[in-house]
Amino acid sequence: MRRLCEHLIGQGVNGLTPLGSTGECAYLSIEDRCKVVQAVVDASNGRVPVVPGVFSRSVKGAIDQARAVQRLGADGMVLTLDSYFPLSQTAVRDYFLRVADAADLPIIIYTNPNFQKVDLGIDLIVELSRHPRMAGIKDASGKTGRLLSLSMQCREGFGIYAASAHIGVNVMLLGGVGLFAGPACVLTPENVRLYELCQAMRWDEAMALQKILWRFSEAFASYNLAACVKAALEHDGFTPGNPIAPQPRLADEAKQTIWKILDEVRMEARTYLDSVIGGVAS
Amino acid sequence: MRRLCEHLIGQGVNGLTPLGSTGECAYLSIEDRCKVVQAVVDASNGRVPVVPGVFSRSVKGAIDQARAVQRLGADGMVLTLDSYFPLSQTAVRDYFLRVADAADLPIIIYTNPNFQKVDLGIDLIVELSRHPRMAGIKDASGKTGRLLSLSMQCREGFGIYAASAHIGVNVMLLGGVGLFAGPACVLTPENVRLYELCQAMRWDEAMALQKILWRFSEAFASYNLAACVKAALEHDGFTPGNPIAPQPRLADEAKQTIWKILDEVRMEARTYLDSVIGGVAS
Amino acid sequence: MRRLCEHLIGQGVNGLTPLGSTGECAYLSIEDRCKVVQAVVDASNGRVPVVPGVFSRSVKGAIDQARAVQRLGADGMVLTLDSYFPLSQTAVRDYFLRVADAADLPIIIYTNPNFQKVDLGIDLIVELSRHPRMAGIKDASGKTGRLLSLSMQCREGFGIYAASAHIGVNVMLLGGVGLFAGPACVLTPENVRLYELCQAMRWDEAMALQKILWRFSEAFASYNLAACVKAALEHDGFTPGNPIAPQPRLADEAKQTIWKILDEVRMEARTYLDSVIGGVAS
Amino acid sequence: MRRLCEHLIGQGVNGLTPLGSTGECAYLSIEDRCKVVQAVVDASNGRVPVVPGVFSRSVKGAIDQARAVQRLGADGMVLTLDSYFPLSQTAVRDYFLRVADAADLPIIIYTNPNFQKVDLGIDLIVELSRHPRMAGIKDASGKTGRLLSLSMQCREGFGIYAASAHIGVNVMLLGGVGLFAGPACVLTPENVRLYELCQAMRWDEAMALQKILWRFSEAFASYNLAACVKAALEHDGFTPGNPIAPQPRLADEAKQTIWKILDEVRMEARTYLDSVIGGVAS
Repeated sequence: MRRLCEHLIGQGVNGLTPLGSTGECAYLSIEDRCKVVQAVVDASNGRVPVVPGVFSRSVKGAIDQARAVQRLGADGMVLTLDSYFPLSQTAVRDYFLRVADAADLPIIIYTNPNFQKVDLGIDLIVELSRHPRMAGIKDASGKTGRLLSLSMQCREGFGIYAASAHIGVNVMLLGGVGLFAGPACVLTPENVRLYELCQAMRWDEAMALQKILWRFSEAFASYNLAACVKAALEHDGFTPGNPIAPQPRLADEAKQTIWKILDEVRMEARTYLDSVIGGVAS
Repeated sequence: MRRLCEHLIGQGVNGLTPLGSTGECAYLSIEDRCKVVQAVVDASNGRVPVVPGVFSRSVKGAIDQARAVQRLGADGMVLTLDSYFPLSQTAVRDYFLRVADAADLPIIIYTNPNFQKVDLGIDLIVELSRHPRMAGIKDASGKTGRLLSLSMQCREGFGIYAASAHIGVNVMLLGGVGLFAGPACVLTPENVRLYELCQAMRWDEAMALQKILWRFSEAFASYNLAACVKAALEHDGFTPGNPIAPQPRLADEAKQTIWKILDEVRMEARTYLDSVIGGVAS
Repeated sequence: MRRLCEHLIGQGVNGLTPLGSTGECAYLSIEDRCKVVQAVVDASNGRVPVVPGVFSRSVKGAIDQARAVQRLGADGMVLTLDSYFPLSQTAVRDYFLRVADAADLPIIIYTNPNFQKVDLGIDLIVELSRHPRMAGIKDASGKTGRLLSLSMQCREGFGIYAASAHIGVNVMLLGGVGLFAGPACVLTPENVRLYELCQAMRWDEAMALQKILWRFSEAFASYNLAACVKAALEHDGFTPGNPIAPQPRLADEAKQTIWKILDEVRMEARTYLDSVIGGVAS
Repeated sequence: MRRLCEHLIGQGVNGLTPLGSTGECAYLSIEDRCKVVQAVVDASNGRVPVVPGVFSRSVKGAIDQARAVQRLGADGMVLTLDSYFPLSQTAVRDYFLRVADAADLPIIIYTNPNFQKVDLGIDLIVELSRHPRMAGIKDASGKTGRLLSLSMQCREGFGIYAASAHIGVNVMLLGGVGLFAGPACVLTPENVRLYELCQAMRWDEAMALQKILWRFSEAFASYNLAACVKAALEHDGFTPGNPIAPQPRLADEAKQTIWKILDEVRMEARTYLDSVIGGVAS
């Protein structure tokens, strides 16, 4: 974990966000989550912000985790509401506001309707955005129009972030401020370049690069996310181990497919970046 | 908790099964779950079997919990697979079989498609039923035909149990062997009589009683389950506290409604039992 | 079609109900639907009531069809609301009440959440049951508890009918008055006996017979309904043709499976009926 | 209808596409659909292509409709598969290919998972795109990443079109070729300008205009689509009548809201277009 963080910072990422969906937060004990945060904070050592996931079914559990990540030195948190029973929007609001009141860190709200049972409606997110500790939203719905509505209605300064189900360039074009993306763990400089092209408003070139990178996003979405990123990290010399059972590990054939895509995407991206936009690198 | 268990045993229940959906297992820390099991085992003191829920997203978490409840003196467990990512039936099978191999207690499989993301198909349950530690299934789908298929295909001796979404009498008629039901925490002697009428194959009388009790099941299903049972226990002089936030507690008006239904159902059930089937009580 | 109706009446059915889900009503033009009703009315010739499906997305379309089946001599209709856009319960109520006001025939409401986009809640069905032309409900939800609630809350005399997703015996036990079931097209005398056992309140024997017949219901549910019944009718010497494309016809292997189940179920049912309850036949 | 078509052509639209979701195709009889196509073809009189919806549950029904619209002078069709029973991807493929083989017109495939029961997977659309009569896809999933995958995998020349659930500018940026959008019936010149800004690759200005127009898209999505467009057309002096019952007509308050949004959006768009990009108009 430390070696990976060192590597990612060396490649130019602007932040580290452990304990998301891909990071198997939902499968880790509270103790293991704390170890992950500790390792990432130590590795970053203040160079980039560390914004781990806080993920709970109960207000109390979330506040406990939020305080723990703060004690461990995190710079913010990505807050998720897990649930078992259905909840009204009133109860969902209650969860986010009570954690925001209790924790002394900036909060990114995380919504992922593919995996989470409770979704947050646009009206509720707009309301939550007015709380001074609510810093932004990481949305994995894949419905880009939803982000346009949020960017227009949420309070000034509330950041819209794309998760990997979205086309990063499209989210940046509509006013997004960044990308939270599992694939960026392995296509790191490529995603940093993508972000820089967007910041420079070079949309056609950004989209050309996005298309090259999208092949990996498609593979990522078609396998178990954790298994896919672990396989890709293995290709790069890391030892991430297997997904937590009963999540299956990737079959060898699938691994080979991912490694091949990874190699091809990297080569294609390098060629594109070298020849067309040599001057982009920061 | 101890007082409640003592009360339930005094009313004639044939077993105690803490840490189900209604028991908010999904919201409790591992430590709190252990405290619950300890309290129930102590209270029962061997008089009736104690069969707590084991509920986890990971094989390791489930095995740890299974061993803990065994150490604490449980007589079996109700095993549930929680999930965040979607899982194939192969991965689901893997979870149940690995826990069954590792734990030295009888297992009741629990499926509740209303709240759980992963459902078990009939073919998989039939296959799992062949494992010697698999003792039965508690199904909360409400689809009674599914239970008829299971009763015909699962191995001899594998028990079919109704959760509260089913009509208990109907499940008993098709070959079921018992009821796991949140409402039985408060309509205890009434549900014991229902069970006895079914065992005596007095189906018309059982259904007449079932209809009287069903009004409470309807209320139970229309509110948050935990909130509803807690409100009903409060009516009976227990102090169960509020549901775990952000689950809302019941509004006072809803509490009054539940209490009224509870009183009326008890009176109607007593009248029916007294006049028509005086001779049933065990 | 005429030959099949003659056959079914000869086997003792108490009514004919063409143009349900299995009858592919949703795939037939209005003209074809009228031809079906005409053929069934002619074949019955007043011997048993004919209650065809009326199935539309619009109030006007439903009223037109309702008047057409009345002109053709139907004795009632099974009314379904098809939809494309989502509808509020208010709009759903509007559909059923306007058709009931305009048509001069008894109406059976049909709900099938497996195939229909719009479901009717219990409260709405209870309200609709008070309209004098509403004669009952055919429910295919498979959730038997829903039928118990309806049987307790709908107006006196409003009939609860089981579709094939339900266990007929269980629905009869809770107060149901009949079975609407695709499988009864081919297991006709067996289903008539089942109905008679229920009417005689011989519940254990009815359930024993139900279990024998259930194997066919399972096959029926695992294939395309229309394809399955057509294959079974072919086995009995009828020429029902293929399902309407793009619904696939059954592969030969699946046909063989269905025919084998049909033969075995018939033999087993006959043995059971002969030896155990010889005296049931009407 | 004729007056509306004349108006739209005068405002610069590049084509007319009656009988989509908003056009209530699903609610119209075959006769009424033909009248709509006739009216639009007559009104266009060859000035812009007319591409009506063909919408059926059966292969035969779709082929009949396809031939009818061809006879009536349509230039292509938007082909939809309606369904009642679930269908395998093989059966879905069968529908589209058999209609494509039988009809002598270009086909736009239409997928709208919000309202249609059957969805087409990316692999199937890619396969269908190889048929020479398949000209493109109108997608209303709102999941923009899906369109990026299609634009990369479908055959060269197969057009990707945004329906109104998508942000038009984002779809154009990723390689889309046009917009099929109910709101363009009333924000016509504004949407034509949007399209031209995209064609000129002036993405930041296109997005600025898109944000202004999005407020109407939000209103459009929050009401019944047909009711909303009809209310807006009424504001502009047309007499579109009410949605087909049981779809409710808009309450007066909702109408006022829509009219207000429409006025404000038009004024804001004019101001933006006048001051910033005066030179865009074709």
